[in-house]
Amino acid sequence: MTLTDSTTPARAGVRYGDPDFALQATSPVIEHQLRHRSVRAFLPTPVTEEELRAVVAAASSASTSSNLQAWSVVAVTDPERKRRLSDLAARQEFIVEAPLFLVWVADLDRGHRLAQRNGEPLDATAYLESTLLGVIDTALAAQNAVVALESLGLGSVFVGAVRNRPEEFAGELGLPPHSVAVFGLAVGHPDPTEDAGVKPRLPQTAVLHRETYDAGKADAGLPAYDERLAAYHRAHGLTGAWTERVLARLAGAAALGGRDGLRDALERRGLPSR
Amino acid sequence: MTLTDSTTPARAGVRYGDPDFALQATSPVIEHQLRHRSVRAFLPTPVTEEELRAVVAAASSASTSSNLQAWSVVAVTDPERKRRLSDLAARQEFIVEAPLFLVWVADLDRGHRLAQRNGEPLDATAYLESTLLGVIDTALAAQNAVVALESLGLGSVFVGAVRNRPEEFAGELGLPPHSVAVFGLAVGHPDPTEDAGVKPRLPQTAVLHRETYDAGKADAGLPAYDERLAAYHRAHGLTGAWTERVLARLAGAAALGGRDGLRDALERRGLPSR
Repeated sequence: MTLTDSTTPARAGVRYGDPDFALQATSPVIEHQLRHRSVRAFLPTPVTEEELRAVVAAASSASTSSNLQAWSVVAVTDPERKRRLSDLAARQEFIVEAPLFLVWVADLDRGHRLAQRNGEPLDATAYLESTLLGVIDTALAAQNAVVALESLGLGSVFVGAVRNRPEEFAGELGLPPHSVAVFGLAVGHPDPTEDAGVKPRLPQTAVLHRETYDAGKADAGLPAYDERLAAYHRAHGLTGAWTERVLARLAGAAALGGRDGLRDALERRGLPSR
Repeated sequence: MTLTDSTTPARAGVRYGDPDFALQATSPVIEHQLRHRSVRAFLPTPVTEEELRAVVAAASSASTSSNLQAWSVVAVTDPERKRRLSDLAARQEFIVEAPLFLVWVADLDRGHRLAQRNGEPLDATAYLESTLLGVIDTALAAQNAVVALESLGLGSVFVGAVRNRPEEFAGELGLPPHSVAVFGLAVGHPDPTEDAGVKPRLPQTAVLHRETYDAGKADAGLPAYDERLAAYHRAHGLTGAWTERVLARLAGAAALGGRDGLRDALERRGLPSR
């Protein structure tokens, strides 16, 4: 329990922006996960077919509710399609720059096709529960993909803005009804000149509760975190602390980039939130 | 590209129930992910505090929308509380048996507390988008936790039934408004006598689309998958193929274990799906 590994305190400490934070239990896999950072600048080197297969095999290895596997992924490499998808997703240029753009889809339509072929009902998909189930399955698979692609020397960044205009996005990808793009993932070889670091996260005391939720104890460390994140932002040419960014991001519908219409769009796409 | 590794074809082939499936690109991390299986029988050995810290550090390392980190996790070890939580989650006995039950919470309340302290609005949380954002953040973190705990020799199984009775579940854990338990994760040292294998997944052709979604191409492999899964089920004392299980699971509200009321419950918990 008091074993020390000279590399461990450093990586865990960087993850929390707290040099005093160290792990006494760890593994090469956890050390790999601690190094995660979002990559938004890519070299033109393509992602190979074999790399893609390995990443999807990792995604398939994630847990899935009742083995429903209610997800699909669309691999986009065509530059013009990436441009059009970028235009629909807040015009983020790295979508075009990345050699591979993976669109992760909550997919209840596979089930609907099975039901149709078998003349059976699939009425449970009308409930919010089923949309959430599809979103959860999709997120579990995609996170496994991120861990896998980083182990191959690739980098990535999630793109939530695919939900800004879900119907046009679905149209561009030919998505069937009962499915929706949950997020994109721009993938490629990281440009080593990008100024991208490991962003400090909330301290464990803020997210980990014992037996029951304790808001007072959880929030005690937030002022120190605000200082840590402000320092990180300054070091990377950004501004602001955490609290002000959270408040700006969730202030109201205007900050949602169109996603305040998501529920109605899902309903029109055959995923009503009953 | 034609490099072969004697261990690779076996693990990837088992993952897909297809001895002909092999990966030409891989890594120790991917090989670790391919071995994932759900564990539902545990030894009484506790999960140590240091193991828990390492698992949460991995969870914190996952990506999060706009760094909002809209999740929390409640670590439950008290046997009586686990019993009560099990009673609310389809009475699954492994929740009690597992030394640690992690409840993963989509948490928009941390933001609400910040907003209240700063006298600012947080109106975006009234939209379905924000609930989905919290669910996605939670799932990304939890999947990283699963990959991490397996690297420490632990095993786990997700419990979606925490959504069956979300308000009573929240009451038992003292969850604040604007938060909801997304799933549980029963964690412990795997009982080596459990008959648990690596469940074959849908073939890559069924989930991976190129440039646009192609339902016909995706579904061509489903009959073969039904045969593979039926064979797996037979080998593990279970019955049925994939299609019939999907159709039964999603037939209608009666199969949802109460989750057809999730949207109304979320609304009452301050997470309306506007």
